[in-house]
Amino acid sequence: MYELGVVYRNIRRADGDLAAKLGAFGTATVHEAMGRIGLLKAYMRPIYAGAQAAGTAVTVLLQPGDNWMLHVVAEQIRAGDIVVAAVTSDCTDGYFGDLLATSFKARGAQGLVIDAGVRDVRVLTGMNFPVWSKAISAKGTVKATLGSVNIPIVCAGALVTPGDIIVADDDGVVVVPATLAQKTLQAAATREANEGDKRAKLASGVLGLDMYNMREALQKAGLKYID
Amino acid sequence: MYELGVVYRNIRRADGDLAAKLGAFGTATVHEAMGRIGLLKAYMRPIYAGAQAAGTAVTVLLQPGDNWMLHVVAEQIRAGDIVVAAVTSDCTDGYFGDLLATSFKARGAQGLVIDAGVRDVRVLTGMNFPVWSKAISAKGTVKATLGSVNIPIVCAGALVTPGDIIVADDDGVVVVPATLAQKTLQAAATREANEGDKRAKLASGVLGLDMYNMREALQKAGLKYID
Amino acid sequence: MYELGVVYRNIRRADGDLAAKLGAFGTATVHEAMGRIGLLKAYMRPIYAGAQAAGTAVTVLLQPGDNWMLHVVAEQIRAGDIVVAAVTSDCTDGYFGDLLATSFKARGAQGLVIDAGVRDVRVLTGMNFPVWSKAISAKGTVKATLGSVNIPIVCAGALVTPGDIIVADDDGVVVVPATLAQKTLQAAATREANEGDKRAKLASGVLGLDMYNMREALQKAGLKYID
Amino acid sequence: MYELGVVYRNIRRADGDLAAKLGAFGTATVHEAMGRIGLLKAYMRPIYAGAQAAGTAVTVLLQPGDNWMLHVVAEQIRAGDIVVAAVTSDCTDGYFGDLLATSFKARGAQGLVIDAGVRDVRVLTGMNFPVWSKAISAKGTVKATLGSVNIPIVCAGALVTPGDIIVADDDGVVVVPATLAQKTLQAAATREANEGDKRAKLASGVLGLDMYNMREALQKAGLKYID
Amino acid sequence: MYELGVVYRNIRRADGDLAAKLGAFGTATVHEAMGRIGLLKAYMRPIYAGAQAAGTAVTVLLQPGDNWMLHVVAEQIRAGDIVVAAVTSDCTDGYFGDLLATSFKARGAQGLVIDAGVRDVRVLTGMNFPVWSKAISAKGTVKATLGSVNIPIVCAGALVTPGDIIVADDDGVVVVPATLAQKTLQAAATREANEGDKRAKLASGVLGLDMYNMREALQKAGLKYID
Amino acid sequence: MYELGVVYRNIRRADGDLAAKLGAFGTATVHEAMGRIGLLKAYMRPIYAGAQAAGTAVTVLLQPGDNWMLHVVAEQIRAGDIVVAAVTSDCTDGYFGDLLATSFKARGAQGLVIDAGVRDVRVLTGMNFPVWSKAISAKGTVKATLGSVNIPIVCAGALVTPGDIIVADDDGVVVVPATLAQKTLQAAATREANEGDKRAKLASGVLGLDMYNMREALQKAGLKYID
Repeated sequence: MYELGVVYRNIRRADGDLAAKLGAFGTATVHEAMGRIGLLKAYMRPIYAGAQAAGTAVTVLLQPGDNWMLHVVAEQIRAGDIVVAAVTSDCTDGYFGDLLATSFKARGAQGLVIDAGVRDVRVLTGMNFPVWSKAISAKGTVKATLGSVNIPIVCAGALVTPGDIIVADDDGVVVVPATLAQKTLQAAATREANEGDKRAKLASGVLGLDMYNMREALQKAGLKYID
Repeated sequence: MYELGVVYRNIRRADGDLAAKLGAFGTATVHEAMGRIGLLKAYMRPIYAGAQAAGTAVTVLLQPGDNWMLHVVAEQIRAGDIVVAAVTSDCTDGYFGDLLATSFKARGAQGLVIDAGVRDVRVLTGMNFPVWSKAISAKGTVKATLGSVNIPIVCAGALVTPGDIIVADDDGVVVVPATLAQKTLQAAATREANEGDKRAKLASGVLGLDMYNMREALQKAGLKYID
Repeated sequence: MYELGVVYRNIRRADGDLAAKLGAFGTATVHEAMGRIGLLKAYMRPIYAGAQAAGTAVTVLLQPGDNWMLHVVAEQIRAGDIVVAAVTSDCTDGYFGDLLATSFKARGAQGLVIDAGVRDVRVLTGMNFPVWSKAISAKGTVKATLGSVNIPIVCAGALVTPGDIIVADDDGVVVVPATLAQKTLQAAATREANEGDKRAKLASGVLGLDMYNMREALQKAGLKYID
Repeated sequence: MYELGVVYRNIRRADGDLAAKLGAFGTATVHEAMGRIGLLKAYMRPIYAGAQAAGTAVTVLLQPGDNWMLHVVAEQIRAGDIVVAAVTSDCTDGYFGDLLATSFKARGAQGLVIDAGVRDVRVLTGMNFPVWSKAISAKGTVKATLGSVNIPIVCAGALVTPGDIIVADDDGVVVVPATLAQKTLQAAATREANEGDKRAKLASGVLGLDMYNMREALQKAGLKYID
Repeated sequence: MYELGVVYRNIRRADGDLAAKLGAFGTATVHEAMGRIGLLKAYMRPIYAGAQAAGTAVTVLLQPGDNWMLHVVAEQIRAGDIVVAAVTSDCTDGYFGDLLATSFKARGAQGLVIDAGVRDVRVLTGMNFPVWSKAISAKGTVKATLGSVNIPIVCAGALVTPGDIIVADDDGVVVVPATLAQKTLQAAATREANEGDKRAKLASGVLGLDMYNMREALQKAGLKYID
Repeated sequence: MYELGVVYRNIRRADGDLAAKLGAFGTATVHEAMGRIGLLKAYMRPIYAGAQAAGTAVTVLLQPGDNWMLHVVAEQIRAGDIVVAAVTSDCTDGYFGDLLATSFKARGAQGLVIDAGVRDVRVLTGMNFPVWSKAISAKGTVKATLGSVNIPIVCAGALVTPGDIIVADDDGVVVVPATLAQKTLQAAATREANEGDKRAKLASGVLGLDMYNMREALQKAGLKYID
């Protein structure tokens, strides 16, 4: 599984334009368009309301209580990337703060997704640097043990391969494998195409029961109405 | 206990006016007025700060990963209702989003209380549609298995009978059985009657120890002051 | 360990000026300056974004579901204090609300740190009275069993001795023993001295790898770059 | 909802013989026979492997950190009862130990189901007195605040009405309303009737796919086999 | 990521003999031999003390509250396999019980690793059929929605590819990719080679400080002894 | 608070004989005798049923994912000691296994209390070496960062000073400060003195209500019996 102590410098990134277009649909729609898969666990929350990001994943595997590899991954960031970080065991320490955010931003990062803790959240919020994390914690870390950069990682229950597209917003984080990006975009577009129409109908009082023709299936399943 | 596959169309709703009046007191006061009972568990949190709702409960029992019955319950909503949703086993999937919110709102719903997850929280916030939930999750659901509508349910540890009054705000959610609503309203009013006076005294530096005459009881209980 | 049923009236408070100066550095920096120790567990969260406080600790030990001692501790508050509250067993009840906040504020309290629940959070937010807690809960409490005031307590995993300095913000809560305050202040100042310079360098695209001279150590640890 | 400070002395117990017969089927089968409902949450675990009990519920509502009402409920126990205990807010204190177990056993109790903690588990195990609880904790409790006995309670997410049948084993705890007991027993018997036959077939290598005729439905749902 | 509604019938299994040999070393040693990686999260616990299994993974992706695919995967089991099951969202329902265990055992399965709940644990224990799960729950499931069989899955935080080797015991579960199995076996053997010798030394009172020559490194790191 | 990188070699141990005598009373009784305080949190569980230990504390503060200091503390163990270990931040890694247990046992340790994970639990059980931990995990650790030995630590919510008495059994773990040991022993003895008599009365059917004369207090508190 995990290879430790390595940094892959050349990864095949998905098309940044696709990432941006998928980002416009948001996490929920993208995940539905993929067939209801690809989500990170719901404990991953943005550090401020309204956070939004879309980009290509550079990945980093960290050791517990040790943020050394975040400095290593910084060098691998290209404009349009989102850093996705996992830890070899559960840890909520504050791996990332305002200095690293300044560095990541200077390198062109769109945001950070980290299955651990972050700190300096007021400054990060002020910088408008979006982060999705498991925890907020002031706890500092050491720089003593190697992890890896740009290997496939499991982050919050989802497999993330370097170069995959990440879409993140208030509803959570979804990963779209580079190979599925184009197809997912089409499915998302199709899905959204008649959303406006549906919304208007529902707003006018039409029921989903009728709009989606559910009554027959419900009856068949045995639903009984009792007065 | 739970009867599955049924929809009760006629429920006896508590007086909507009572609901509004109780809502003005807020969750904490109402729960105190009932004798410190009726609260849903504290993990039920509003999706945005400042959310407030009061109304009569229509209830729905859902299956894990399946939001079919939310479409069924939509038809049973009347103006002034709050939908209260439970699941037959623990689940944090995103059962409810902007389309259902549009429909619920069009039917006159005051809000949603759901012992599971919701999504599209930015849109819901923009719509000012208040939701109290266990989780925020983009995870979509299927429509395959029946639950029930307007049966008594246990939601986040509290028994909710259709027609009960629900009061919800930043402090959480409380359920007031229809039969206790009038009495609870009086108790809440009594409780609040001299709050302003108390607040003024405390603000002026008077201690609760003196205002509530606690010193004797504390001494009797054996409290010792050490200089 | 805990002595029950006692109130220590005379405690030796750390210098309030030191508290204010430490507060200006924030939780993360102070905890680093102490050698990466002194933090309360990360589940302690402010009830509103942007909450900040620094002051000297008055401590209170509470019983489960019982807030009697919060009235007792109120009398011991002096201007510049922060009340730090622990419970003898895990409890998320709403021990503290707007009336107690009014009283604490009138006595000069800078805030509350409580390893339990609080309520009336909207009013507390409006009062700008900062609270760090484990939970928000409308659940009321009784006044029946004694705890203690101004004894050393363990709050959210950290030992707090009356008179210690407490610094709290969005990143969490840190306790600085009175005897370490001066030394910690110096270490914090040293730590921050060249932060602006570092931030400017990182913002210009200089990597932490180079700024901190990490490359050699990483190579020595065996890190391999693969193209 | 909850009425505090009352003890109902006369409750209508389900037939003890029905309880015993349902107990023989075990928790999983009984819950299936009721239509997959009635279970307490899975965090309720027996204090020793192999614990089993079936009986009629006497209920008790406790206050946090206060076991006074366990002494009150003891008097209401009749032979064949199981005590079911809830707390007005989450608490893991050790409400129950060997002395109370001795008393309960002398009154004819078949066991205890408590949404809180217990202690003296080694002695309880030696006494063969089965307990299902949320926690094991040595933490003692006070006797200061009233709850109630034999009112309907919500225990670990399930509504328990005094007199209901409780079946508990290694798989958890299920509550069968007195009115459904007879019907549930028949459904359980039907369900188990051909289990032996099924088990034999499966043991011989027959697949559930064939024994339950699932292949057509799977194909219809779109399942694809890829070589 | 996940492909839904497919069953891969031909997977390349790691050598069963390697699996057995790795199993003899146990989870902790194998994970160390891989470089301290490959473990499933620690919440995966055996249903009985002393459970042990080693074999090749057949994987199954389940839907919440739905165990349909466990019947589908049964057909793909070959002697020496261990079934590894994940769910598309968090769920603790009892997906697996004695009938499925009978079937799995008849097909030659060595055990089950499931990131969800199981039931009939007393019978499973009696059958000596080892299961590692997140929960024990009597909650039954439906058969309505497709997942997949023999696709790569993330189970309890670890990526499991069909055919990988699984080693599981009281300490948890580790996955060894087929390609690393031979190398891991050698590393494990080397690691264990002088364990007996070390154990004897330590048992005689020799300190790890001396046996591993740690004193110098500790001194260099700045450790101070104070009398 | 915590001083890092130090080992105190000379600590004042409580009387070992007192420790043994307190151990005979068990965790629950000792904690009651101290006034219902001194317990570690209930998540600390023995790795095997029936584990029991009593002794004097040597303490160790560990870093996340790093067990270096367990080798350092080994040298400080004297016959009759119990090692009590805390980590600077939450971690469930397997810090301790059979080799360290062999060493600790050779040094005379009575057991280990660790607010983290342990592994090799089958071997530890076979060795009859009692451990109370937060988790069982095969996850290995590194040896890179200093902690401290024999400083006061907070372990699972309780302050433990080197030399304090630790009593641990199936009900959990309690710490008795050396200065309170004698007094606690007397209180425990008094408490237990008439337990046999009480047990006999309760076994004969006498109610706690009568044995403890609770009826008047209950009536005064307002308890109502309803027929």
